[in-house]
Amino acid sequence: MTLNESKKEVEKGINIFISNLSEQELYRPISYILELGGKRLRPSLALLSSAFFGGNVEDILHPALAVEVFHNFSLMHDDIMDNAPIRRGQETVHEKWNTNSAILSGDAMLVQAYKLVINTEDSNIKPLNELFSQTAIEVCEGQQFDMDFETRDNVSIEEYIEMITLKTSVLIACALKMGAITAGAADNEANLIYDYGINMGIAFQLRDDYLDAFGQMEKVGKQKGGDILANKKTYLALKAISNANEIERAQLIELQKEPNPKLKVEQTLRLFTSLGVDKDIEHLSKSYFAKALASLRSCEGNPKILEEFLTFSEGLMVREY
Amino acid sequence: MTLNESKKEVEKGINIFISNLSEQELYRPISYILELGGKRLRPSLALLSSAFFGGNVEDILHPALAVEVFHNFSLMHDDIMDNAPIRRGQETVHEKWNTNSAILSGDAMLVQAYKLVINTEDSNIKPLNELFSQTAIEVCEGQQFDMDFETRDNVSIEEYIEMITLKTSVLIACALKMGAITAGAADNEANLIYDYGINMGIAFQLRDDYLDAFGQMEKVGKQKGGDILANKKTYLALKAISNANEIERAQLIELQKEPNPKLKVEQTLRLFTSLGVDKDIEHLSKSYFAKALASLRSCEGNPKILEEFLTFSEGLMVREY
Repeated sequence: MTLNESKKEVEKGINIFISNLSEQELYRPISYILELGGKRLRPSLALLSSAFFGGNVEDILHPALAVEVFHNFSLMHDDIMDNAPIRRGQETVHEKWNTNSAILSGDAMLVQAYKLVINTEDSNIKPLNELFSQTAIEVCEGQQFDMDFETRDNVSIEEYIEMITLKTSVLIACALKMGAITAGAADNEANLIYDYGINMGIAFQLRDDYLDAFGQMEKVGKQKGGDILANKKTYLALKAISNANEIERAQLIELQKEPNPKLKVEQTLRLFTSLGVDKDIEHLSKSYFAKALASLRSCEGNPKILEEFLTFSEGLMVREY
Repeated sequence: MTLNESKKEVEKGINIFISNLSEQELYRPISYILELGGKRLRPSLALLSSAFFGGNVEDILHPALAVEVFHNFSLMHDDIMDNAPIRRGQETVHEKWNTNSAILSGDAMLVQAYKLVINTEDSNIKPLNELFSQTAIEVCEGQQFDMDFETRDNVSIEEYIEMITLKTSVLIACALKMGAITAGAADNEANLIYDYGINMGIAFQLRDDYLDAFGQMEKVGKQKGGDILANKKTYLALKAISNANEIERAQLIELQKEPNPKLKVEQTLRLFTSLGVDKDIEHLSKSYFAKALASLRSCEGNPKILEEFLTFSEGLMVREY
């Protein structure tokens, strides 16, 4: 099985899930957000992981869909909290309907995710449920950290890594581990693929932060420096403060109030470069990437699918936007 | 076991649950809302049901707490949707913190409820999970109906009964059935106690509607006629429209716009009485009550605990506020 084949199975499953939803008002935002698309990365990785450890599609499909439904639930609620008007080029649910609908349909999605998790072999219900709940609560904790960061001015780099781990990595790792569980892999194998997911997720998010500042975002029509404009406490911003001398620190803080967006991005990027944080983030990202690959290579899985994982992982790291 | 003893076990369990919560910001609204108190009716009934069918406290306690945590999650999110400033005499979570906190901590509560559900005998995990998810989704559907009713002017009495069944009864019935499941009762017994819960829940909610209009609310410091003032489409309002002739119907509709609250409540109540809806609701409530008791009496449970259930049920129906 390739990642592409895996994605096709997932799309089929999502379509069946959507077509089984009742016509009631409650479910319209659910099919809407699921139909916005997305890469279906998490569930596709779950299927690939299952195949890697010799499992079959049938046992992992519904738990994998649970992860995708949960992911979209969290996007629906996060978009309310972040006051985001656009998601994947379309209106967010709370904009298209209203906040109440986005809250309630999101709640219903979380419940539906739990219904999907237990749609598998009886012997897997308990471990999958435990893993899923643990992950879900960590994602909530990550979102809380992220919100707290906005009003805090003493965020450490360790806390930032912890936040992105909770907000991004644990769900990817959960999807991968679910594949191992339903395939009946040994605990240490399941934990290795989980670790791969955690470290890959951190590397991926750091690459995202790098690209938001230094990537060729214009190519895909995204605004360059969105994080800088929003004064987000990313690794780059935190590390710049940490590398800076007193004068540079004052400049960085002054730039947060700069009203001209073009000037703000340009000057901040110039400071970032002179402080070497572009190199720092690449270095850190690569070290998480290396850790991820080490865990992956330690797994005793199907060698062809190992290659598939490696190609996928490298693809994430070399992307330019 | 008495209902009172059952409630004491539940309180102990809730206190342990609260004391095990992390100190993080995410969990503060959770302990806050759980510490506001409440009757702990649903989990207490779960324990009583378990004892009724010969089960032990240990197996039902955590699933019962799941129901209470879920109930409080739904209050936290409903309060946002209803823009409610006060809950049990204290500020609601979204007022004391903010909407984002109430959304996110509510989400975390829903996950924690699921963690509690599976904290029981392995063989019960699947049926409890299925029942809990089915119930949770129905509660969401009930809340959606309730919100839809606000902007609809063709709500039927059947739809109203369906809405209160989903919003109120199914969770009570779920708690009772969980007790039967963990006690190892036969399916038909579990379904009978579920039916008792459904019909008792409807009777209870109809009694609530009656008391909101005709009860001695002043005695407990509640505003009389709150539903009338809010133009809520309760059974009384819907049945009044249905019983009214053209002139009375016009009067009822006119009264919805009456700005003087005292006048509005008094005149609406006078119309309700002359249209006989006070008698209609008592009649309907009693018929659900009778159905509830018939299901209860058909159960093959401990006779002493049957008496406890009967006393409790009658207590609900004779209350004056």
